[in-house]
Amino acid sequence: MLEELKKQVYEANMELPRRGLITYTWGNVSGIDRDKNLFVIKPSGVAYDELKPEDMVVLDLEGNIVEGNLRPSSDTPTHLELYKKFQDIGGIVHTHSPEATSFAQAGMDIVLYGTTHADYFYGSIPCTRSLTKEEIEGEYEVNTGKVIIETFEERNINPVYTPGVLCKNHGPFTWGKDAGEAVHNAVVLEEVAKMAFKTRMINPLVEEAPDCIRDKHFFRKHGENAYYGQK
Amino acid sequence: MLEELKKQVYEANMELPRRGLITYTWGNVSGIDRDKNLFVIKPSGVAYDELKPEDMVVLDLEGNIVEGNLRPSSDTPTHLELYKKFQDIGGIVHTHSPEATSFAQAGMDIVLYGTTHADYFYGSIPCTRSLTKEEIEGEYEVNTGKVIIETFEERNINPVYTPGVLCKNHGPFTWGKDAGEAVHNAVVLEEVAKMAFKTRMINPLVEEAPDCIRDKHFFRKHGENAYYGQK
Amino acid sequence: MLEELKKQVYEANMELPRRGLITYTWGNVSGIDRDKNLFVIKPSGVAYDELKPEDMVVLDLEGNIVEGNLRPSSDTPTHLELYKKFQDIGGIVHTHSPEATSFAQAGMDIVLYGTTHADYFYGSIPCTRSLTKEEIEGEYEVNTGKVIIETFEERNINPVYTPGVLCKNHGPFTWGKDAGEAVHNAVVLEEVAKMAFKTRMINPLVEEAPDCIRDKHFFRKHGENAYYGQK
Amino acid sequence: MLEELKKQVYEANMELPRRGLITYTWGNVSGIDRDKNLFVIKPSGVAYDELKPEDMVVLDLEGNIVEGNLRPSSDTPTHLELYKKFQDIGGIVHTHSPEATSFAQAGMDIVLYGTTHADYFYGSIPCTRSLTKEEIEGEYEVNTGKVIIETFEERNINPVYTPGVLCKNHGPFTWGKDAGEAVHNAVVLEEVAKMAFKTRMINPLVEEAPDCIRDKHFFRKHGENAYYGQK
Repeated sequence: MLEELKKQVYEANMELPRRGLITYTWGNVSGIDRDKNLFVIKPSGVAYDELKPEDMVVLDLEGNIVEGNLRPSSDTPTHLELYKKFQDIGGIVHTHSPEATSFAQAGMDIVLYGTTHADYFYGSIPCTRSLTKEEIEGEYEVNTGKVIIETFEERNINPVYTPGVLCKNHGPFTWGKDAGEAVHNAVVLEEVAKMAFKTRMINPLVEEAPDCIRDKHFFRKHGENAYYGQK
Repeated sequence: MLEELKKQVYEANMELPRRGLITYTWGNVSGIDRDKNLFVIKPSGVAYDELKPEDMVVLDLEGNIVEGNLRPSSDTPTHLELYKKFQDIGGIVHTHSPEATSFAQAGMDIVLYGTTHADYFYGSIPCTRSLTKEEIEGEYEVNTGKVIIETFEERNINPVYTPGVLCKNHGPFTWGKDAGEAVHNAVVLEEVAKMAFKTRMINPLVEEAPDCIRDKHFFRKHGENAYYGQK
Repeated sequence: MLEELKKQVYEANMELPRRGLITYTWGNVSGIDRDKNLFVIKPSGVAYDELKPEDMVVLDLEGNIVEGNLRPSSDTPTHLELYKKFQDIGGIVHTHSPEATSFAQAGMDIVLYGTTHADYFYGSIPCTRSLTKEEIEGEYEVNTGKVIIETFEERNINPVYTPGVLCKNHGPFTWGKDAGEAVHNAVVLEEVAKMAFKTRMINPLVEEAPDCIRDKHFFRKHGENAYYGQK
Repeated sequence: MLEELKKQVYEANMELPRRGLITYTWGNVSGIDRDKNLFVIKPSGVAYDELKPEDMVVLDLEGNIVEGNLRPSSDTPTHLELYKKFQDIGGIVHTHSPEATSFAQAGMDIVLYGTTHADYFYGSIPCTRSLTKEEIEGEYEVNTGKVIIETFEERNINPVYTPGVLCKNHGPFTWGKDAGEAVHNAVVLEEVAKMAFKTRMINPLVEEAPDCIRDKHFFRKHGENAYYGQK
């Protein structure tokens, strides 16, 4: 079942090591079929060069395995929380890509310093609070999802405009309209993090770019008045 | 028309990802035919591995599309301003290459710290002022060109001697006698930015290299007394 | 003799340059047969692209060469000390990988800042004290092993839970249940060091991640309650 | 003439871009025949992928071209000074490799922080003083050689024990018993510079490694009591 989606999710997973975002098995991509309310995710701890499209695991939105012989990614409950809450997203990526993970470990947002960032993320890429001891010892992966959602709600961030987050002491999640776009955003996040790091080192007093730069670039690429790219 | 120039501009565009300056579609190269007053530029948002010479768009110096089925780069009006003002240049490149973009985001010139820089750029590579809200919300890409020109005029910089600039909160533009040389200068700028970053981190009190170093190296490679390379 | 182990150790050695941890001949891997009390190690100063499985040197735990025409790695006595003391390890790696070596040169532990670290190392990766003049001028490589052991004993660190160390002013050693896992841990250590470096630069006031994060992630992958990966 | 040496120098030149030390044509290697008092050097400004062994230029120790149709490297007079003064060296390399050049631009020695450095360089890799205006405007490349020699004499450094230098505001020169070893040392210098940079950033108060570490590692690899590598 969902052979087309499995192939798409497989391809999106394989793009991660090609783009240099992955060491060993440290990442996972999923994609959802919103009509059937089923999602497809990478199996846990399988080496990328042994991965096959048919290894992808199919789950429903209660987290039951509907198809697949392998255990799904250990981060599956986090994906599930995000799919349930963020109704407009169709694919999710988690990596430990080094630049973004360094900001997550530092517990710092990635502030919008320029147009590369603004072309994809409408404002700071937020870093969540730490999970409490109880949240970690309880349903850890579910709570990871919940703290992401809390971050977007409390800070009133639109997850479609800002398709990524840093989980404190952990690493980034990104998403998009499908698995491919989620990977695209993971690549952009890593590049944006690399430049934000250097920007801060060159000028420790640097401030966020003006809102008008953010608005101009974001809406040059997104929404009804976009004029970047081909029609 | 302009098949030879299209091919040259196409080749110059394709050199950018090969040199590691480009993520996805974040860059564009153009070249001008000064006799015909027509220039050729990459289409907007087309993936590099799908690009073909015949996709290049031909425009006149009023910005009218003279030939081509695709939309030109969204940065076309910036190129146009530069071609009109800087009469001695024949090719222009824009990238978001990470080292140079980090200086642009930090709002800092790249100061001349050594001979690698002086071999190509006669003094600091300037960073423009921020555009005003009005300039951003108005003809943004035209105004990006205008602020580059303002920077060179106010600081009395010769654009042939210093073939590049950092647009604040955005990224670098470079140029040259043709599209190929503009790409060459984009590669050099990125390398020079990488070394300037490390130089400043190693020695936060570092000062600009002496003028005599700058003069020696720049004129060893440029002008009538040059003696670098083959005759 | 020990042809299978030789091949395994050879393959583990060859993985080091593939993973970018090695310049020239700066590294060595060994593996032990605990039943026979013999271990196999790379010969000293042989280029990786000339290395063959049959070049591996076999030694006993008194350091006598049992088989092999080449001199063993000059670091052999360090491996020997570790095999004698850390009875549960089956393979050892030494490299001068740049990120981990920089921490060793700085004389600093790699503090646990996040889950990538906690997935593999249960707490700080310790940096040893400096060897004394007498220790250096005496049996240097033996003493390098002894100071590693001293570090784990004095700080009460379990070498199976924390399979790596930084030797001050020198570089890292890692280990594992066999040569392959020791290399895996060397790759992880380098990645963890890279992220710890950036984490500290982004936020100089950053603190160690909470113990509950460390416990959660380490035991998600290790021990009887592990649930990462396939059964 | 000197076909074997030309081939050797050609191969050594080609190793530079393979090792990632070179952008465009920014480097040159030479090698000397001490019996004939002739040396062979790369031609100036020729792209590496167009270089052929027969393009190498042969000069005598007065700087006269003895054979070759192309102009020799513009840095030829610097090589010449070094060959005349440092009688025990057989090959010289100049690059603008980014890590070493950043220290040169910062005007800082590369201090010995660990064994990687000590395996090849017996103490700090010195950075020269600035050339005076008169030295730069006069015989610049000759004076570059003279200031290197002055540095080694005034600081009483043995050029065989410390086979490299940083020219202030410029970049590194390295040497060795032949062109191949000079390139080997250029690669090591770049790696050592990379680690020194990170070491200083991790621990701004870091001190030089103890002399006994330096002595142990240098003489483990060099001199009559060396025991690294094969006999």
